[in-house]
Amino acid sequence: KEDQNLLLAAAYVSDAQYNRNVPFETSPRAIRLYYFYNHWTMQVAIYFFICIDLSLALFEEPALFPLPFLATSLAEVLCLTAFFGRLVHFAKVTPQMVFWKDTKNICIMVTIVLTLIDLIIYGSLKAVNIRSVRWSRALRPVFLINFPESRQIRRTFRSIRNTLPDILYVFLLFMFSVLIFSLMALKLFGDRGLKTVEGLPYFTNILDIVFELYVLVTTANSPDVMMPAYNFNWWYSLYFITYTIINTYIFMSVFLAVVYNNYRKHLKNEIRKLVYLKRHKMIEAFNILKVKVGSEYVVMEAQWRRLAKVVAPHISSPHLELLLRISDEGQKGHVDKVNFLRLPDLLNIQVVTINIKRHPLEDWMPRVYQSSASLLVQRMVRHRQVRWGQIFVWVYDVIILINAIFIALDEKNPFISYAEWLFLSLYVIEILLKLYTYEPRAYFGRKQFWNWFDMLIIIAALVATVANTTIQSARKYNSQQILDIVLILRILRLLRIIVSIQRFRVIVTTLINIGPTILTFGGLVLVVYYVFAVIGMEAFHGKVRFLDPNFTSPDALVCGNPALKDSAFARDRYCKNNFNDLASSFILLMELTVVNHLLLLAGGFALVTHQAAKLYFIGFHIVVVILIVNIFIAFILEAFFMAYSLEKSEVETAIEKKIQELGVGIQEEEMQDGKLIDNVDAKDSGFSGEDGDNKRKDLKGLYFRIASKKYRTVDALLQQMFESEIAPEEEGPSLDEILNFSPGDIYPKNPNFESSA
Amino acid sequence: KEDQNLLLAAAYVSDAQYNRNVPFETSPRAIRLYYFYNHWTMQVAIYFFICIDLSLALFEEPALFPLPFLATSLAEVLCLTAFFGRLVHFAKVTPQMVFWKDTKNICIMVTIVLTLIDLIIYGSLKAVNIRSVRWSRALRPVFLINFPESRQIRRTFRSIRNTLPDILYVFLLFMFSVLIFSLMALKLFGDRGLKTVEGLPYFTNILDIVFELYVLVTTANSPDVMMPAYNFNWWYSLYFITYTIINTYIFMSVFLAVVYNNYRKHLKNEIRKLVYLKRHKMIEAFNILKVKVGSEYVVMEAQWRRLAKVVAPHISSPHLELLLRISDEGQKGHVDKVNFLRLPDLLNIQVVTINIKRHPLEDWMPRVYQSSASLLVQRMVRHRQVRWGQIFVWVYDVIILINAIFIALDEKNPFISYAEWLFLSLYVIEILLKLYTYEPRAYFGRKQFWNWFDMLIIIAALVATVANTTIQSARKYNSQQILDIVLILRILRLLRIIVSIQRFRVIVTTLINIGPTILTFGGLVLVVYYVFAVIGMEAFHGKVRFLDPNFTSPDALVCGNPALKDSAFARDRYCKNNFNDLASSFILLMELTVVNHLLLLAGGFALVTHQAAKLYFIGFHIVVVILIVNIFIAFILEAFFMAYSLEKSEVETAIEKKIQELGVGIQEEEMQDGKLIDNVDAKDSGFSGEDGDNKRKDLKGLYFRIASKKYRTVDALLQQMFESEIAPEEEGPSLDEILNFSPGDIYPKNPNFESSA
Repeated sequence: KEDQNLLLAAAYVSDAQYNRNVPFETSPRAIRLYYFYNHWTMQVAIYFFICIDLSLALFEEPALFPLPFLATSLAEVLCLTAFFGRLVHFAKVTPQMVFWKDTKNICIMVTIVLTLIDLIIYGSLKAVNIRSVRWSRALRPVFLINFPESRQIRRTFRSIRNTLPDILYVFLLFMFSVLIFSLMALKLFGDRGLKTVEGLPYFTNILDIVFELYVLVTTANSPDVMMPAYNFNWWYSLYFITYTIINTYIFMSVFLAVVYNNYRKHLKNEIRKLVYLKRHKMIEAFNILKVKVGSEYVVMEAQWRRLAKVVAPHISSPHLELLLRISDEGQKGHVDKVNFLRLPDLLNIQVVTINIKRHPLEDWMPRVYQSSASLLVQRMVRHRQVRWGQIFVWVYDVIILINAIFIALDEKNPFISYAEWLFLSLYVIEILLKLYTYEPRAYFGRKQFWNWFDMLIIIAALVATVANTTIQSARKYNSQQILDIVLILRILRLLRIIVSIQRFRVIVTTLINIGPTILTFGGLVLVVYYVFAVIGMEAFHGKVRFLDPNFTSPDALVCGNPALKDSAFARDRYCKNNFNDLASSFILLMELTVVNHLLLLAGGFALVTHQAAKLYFIGFHIVVVILIVNIFIAFILEAFFMAYSLEKSEVETAIEKKIQELGVGIQEEEMQDGKLIDNVDAKDSGFSGEDGDNKRKDLKGLYFRIASKKYRTVDALLQQMFESEIAPEEEGPSLDEILNFSPGDIYPKNPNFESSA
Repeated sequence: KEDQNLLLAAAYVSDAQYNRNVPFETSPRAIRLYYFYNHWTMQVAIYFFICIDLSLALFEEPALFPLPFLATSLAEVLCLTAFFGRLVHFAKVTPQMVFWKDTKNICIMVTIVLTLIDLIIYGSLKAVNIRSVRWSRALRPVFLINFPESRQIRRTFRSIRNTLPDILYVFLLFMFSVLIFSLMALKLFGDRGLKTVEGLPYFTNILDIVFELYVLVTTANSPDVMMPAYNFNWWYSLYFITYTIINTYIFMSVFLAVVYNNYRKHLKNEIRKLVYLKRHKMIEAFNILKVKVGSEYVVMEAQWRRLAKVVAPHISSPHLELLLRISDEGQKGHVDKVNFLRLPDLLNIQVVTINIKRHPLEDWMPRVYQSSASLLVQRMVRHRQVRWGQIFVWVYDVIILINAIFIALDEKNPFISYAEWLFLSLYVIEILLKLYTYEPRAYFGRKQFWNWFDMLIIIAALVATVANTTIQSARKYNSQQILDIVLILRILRLLRIIVSIQRFRVIVTTLINIGPTILTFGGLVLVVYYVFAVIGMEAFHGKVRFLDPNFTSPDALVCGNPALKDSAFARDRYCKNNFNDLASSFILLMELTVVNHLLLLAGGFALVTHQAAKLYFIGFHIVVVILIVNIFIAFILEAFFMAYSLEKSEVETAIEKKIQELGVGIQEEEMQDGKLIDNVDAKDSGFSGEDGDNKRKDLKGLYFRIASKKYRTVDALLQQMFESEIAPEEEGPSLDEILNFSPGDIYPKNPNFESSA
């Protein structure tokens, strides 16, 4: 019975730690199934099947690598079985009521059924040689979105859905403005008998005008669309300038404002929900394990230890003791409620072993290593402590710049290929000097990102140069890809200059920290691209073909379709921009995302099919550019604002304060910049007194690594801020209230000067 | 002596009211000169001369309307004299020390001297028939920026200057990334022997590659720049996709983030400065006028009245009494310090006369107007009070939509031209019905924006239709411009639909409120465009000419310059995009701001001059697109966020609270939406009891019109927020401290969940 309770409490704590929000049944069997459901192998398996399912589009007609229909359909059925199995597993874990109310599950089931129906219809029609449409392929991203693991992507989708009503009115007003301008254009230019550059009538059909003016908003046909009117009379340029200011600049900014504002509102609401749900789960766990000691309920130390072992099985005993020291400050043998609620945060803080050692060379040959010449070298490399030490950095910056010039020059010159080796040896010397000065294990510590970066670049450059020489001497070897990668690696070494300029490092670090969330956007973009690519492949497959790389045959000049004769599409040799396989479709959609030449591409596909094809391109523009790209920009803005506003301020959670008080924490900045090592090593280079040795002794053992402010994500920071604002004892609103939080409640009643703007 | 003091105090109060920050001498003569300096005629005069000076570029070589050099140079000397006179006037007003320390004054003087030197050199060289460069023309915007009246434009320039260091590092990193990618492109594609669509070698010269890739950031040459490599091997598209994601999406967003962040920081700092300076001036004024009554210093009522009369000479006596009632609440015969400090805000609040009257028809023929048929009509028009009343609005929305379709159809059809009159009469009937229902003077009140808007559109449509019919019947009349304006007016009537959809009205109102500040951006853009246009006219004048509207002669096909033979510039008939006069230059710069086809335009001008010409275009892109357009977007974002975050909150200044307490205030919303009138009129339509009549009596007389939150500008709102945060007694920091405020101090020490994100 007690084991059951422990398992249940551990499940709550674990959910709180990873911010999982799956309501599960509390029966012993369901809990054990829930553990299995959350096991990493199951998660990897489900993502594996999702990948398989999505990548089937590469092998189905129109295929990049064709496979028979039987093979792909079998693979698809296998995937569907796996998805169904996962769903059944989930149904066993979660209460029946909840399961059937959750739209995610219904979505998955409906999609499975629809896909099966589609497979059967398509298969049987194929058996009698009728080609039909595999429409269910557009539904495949549903699996990526709707499994509980894809919380981030779902959140972004929810954010988009919540933005829609607000954006709809702006969009309607915007379309109204486009229509008014179109009517004006029709009346102003329609009867003038003007011609476009291609000799077509200019602005005579209202639908064409609406399309052209919509494209003008994307700036893709500026100034071409204006030139005939402008050539006729320069006053008409005012019409187009007014249009651009109103629709391109003002309306597009308003779209960004609306999307950004909703993104912020929604983000905050989600985080408030997450924090309260986490609190809720921890209170559940506490209530299961609590016993009464004196006047208050607490969790006994033994129970707490067992719980921690279940939640984090791989935790080491010293680590566990350290956690206990934080949680049971007074060594009273039990953990009170406030401290118990902090357990998931404690488990999320990394613990590192600080074990400062002397440099190995110092042990082997102390006399040489401590000689004045050696100390001079060390001081130069260490460049932090003496003013002229910067010279070491500058010298290497200059070397990299000269290297860049040499790369740009012709490499056939033998002198330059010798120089290549010179540069490489200089870089290797630099690394060796650094290893001579700093303790090697500390220099290549687990989180010494920039040192690893530097090292890897030099190794890559070495490998590339050696490979290049081998290839050149072998002559016979001819793989294009390998050669290209070698070329790129040789150039990437120039990135080393980022390492030595502090301001560049800060910008790059911020960008790298955004990385994980950019991957969420990657998922979102993948979903949208996939759906549009499948539709595009069904609609435009084979209409435009890339025949001959040299464009000599008359058929290749019109992309294999006579309808494209004399079109700008064929003239600019866009034949490869087609929907003939998944890769081509994705590349084409990427071009459409960039927006330029939207008109030309849409025009080409309208010529080979029907004018209505333009709707596909406009739809893509609205979804991707107006919604998704704006969310992307909003996201980057938010991350940078967060970084800026935290630069000068202190945000510390209660736990971090406590860790600092107990003296068992180390700031990430100190580790990252090697300051810690510097400070401790200072003694060796003779710059500090006895402190060094004392500090070194003090610093041995286990420590909490406190992530510095600037290395955290926006989500984590907001979560911490909100957590520090609710009182540690507060139980929060009830579960129903939490789930019904609306973004509208977020605004402060009295915005003040500091918070606004 | 007392008069002198009063004048001095009034000068301080007036400066505080209009946020002027000119340090002036306190001698009686200087004060009188200062009054003259601030007189509106002087301000209009100086702007008149600035306009003349700037517009000279229209008449000088290369001229849109050529005038002899003698005429333009005389006009310029006249303007310079006026500027010098203004400066001398300013020097008499301000202390010598301050005058010579102020860079604004030095700038103006240096520019006057340089312009004179340039005029003399150019004139004497012209006399001996040597053509030289009128370089001083690029300095003319200095006058627009540096006169104390252009505070807003100067502030934006300061904001840009403060942003530069931050943006510089991002820009360097960005250029570094472009260079790395250029080197890769050279190595990857340089030796492949690929050709562009024009048959030129592809990616063989490093400088060309850097330029092409820089342009790719603007998306102007996507996907053309990719096609040769993509056609060769589809793997290469990955290179371009990576490049686009990093440099177009991420870096451009980072630019926006940096510019936006600095804009906010700077805006807040400026507003803090303004508020403290205002407080400072009011304390000066108080110290001049104060007398001791009991234990505290106060200003006597008589003095206060005289002061108000000097500051606002046109104030009416009831208005003055109302102000006094607010300032001297206890009717003690004097105004204390806290209330005195509020005087400028009080003067800035508009006062309106509410004088609700019966509808004139009700007086003339009460029986008819109150008959049940008449009441039914009124109820329908009043549409607020009965559910099916909305029908009236919907019917007219449908009529407008049908009208739109008719406009789009061919107007030669006689049936449609008759329908035209039908629609117009329907619109007139609508206005008449509204006038029948609402009291006409209230309906066309001073601030009933939407009613006026509606009325003006219908009148314009009437005039346009009548004019159109006249022209068509006269047949001989043939002025293109008049006809175009008539066409546009007929279409603008469709804007009426905005009036009837509430959500559209909100968006449009926000946009209209941004209007004044968009004009500041107009000034900023004018300055930058002017400088670039003058440089462009000197560098590219006459190189490209627009010869023949029909492009038939061989010379016209190459824009009068054989260097453009076979170029894309000539092929797309861009000949009119040239720098041959100020108007053409401005239109071309506008096209460059929109960015698309930057490459084509820059390429054309590089062909007729030198490859270095591309630097001019890149420079323009950096200044206008990266800096100014981003500031514009930041500004619109800020305005919308402000509007959003205020939607649900209460921001009221101390004065507004007091006005509400005394019951002498009226919310702008009530006036704007006609609710006030509705409520008071309710009696007439028999929907409320005796309240209506009582309310009507109560509401007679003078009232403060309290601007609603959503009709205020960002600046004004921030200023009010900050003012409400500093205690009313606080004297603020010293003058020196105020002037040395830095934007870095703004950040809150502990950002909280509400204020962040």
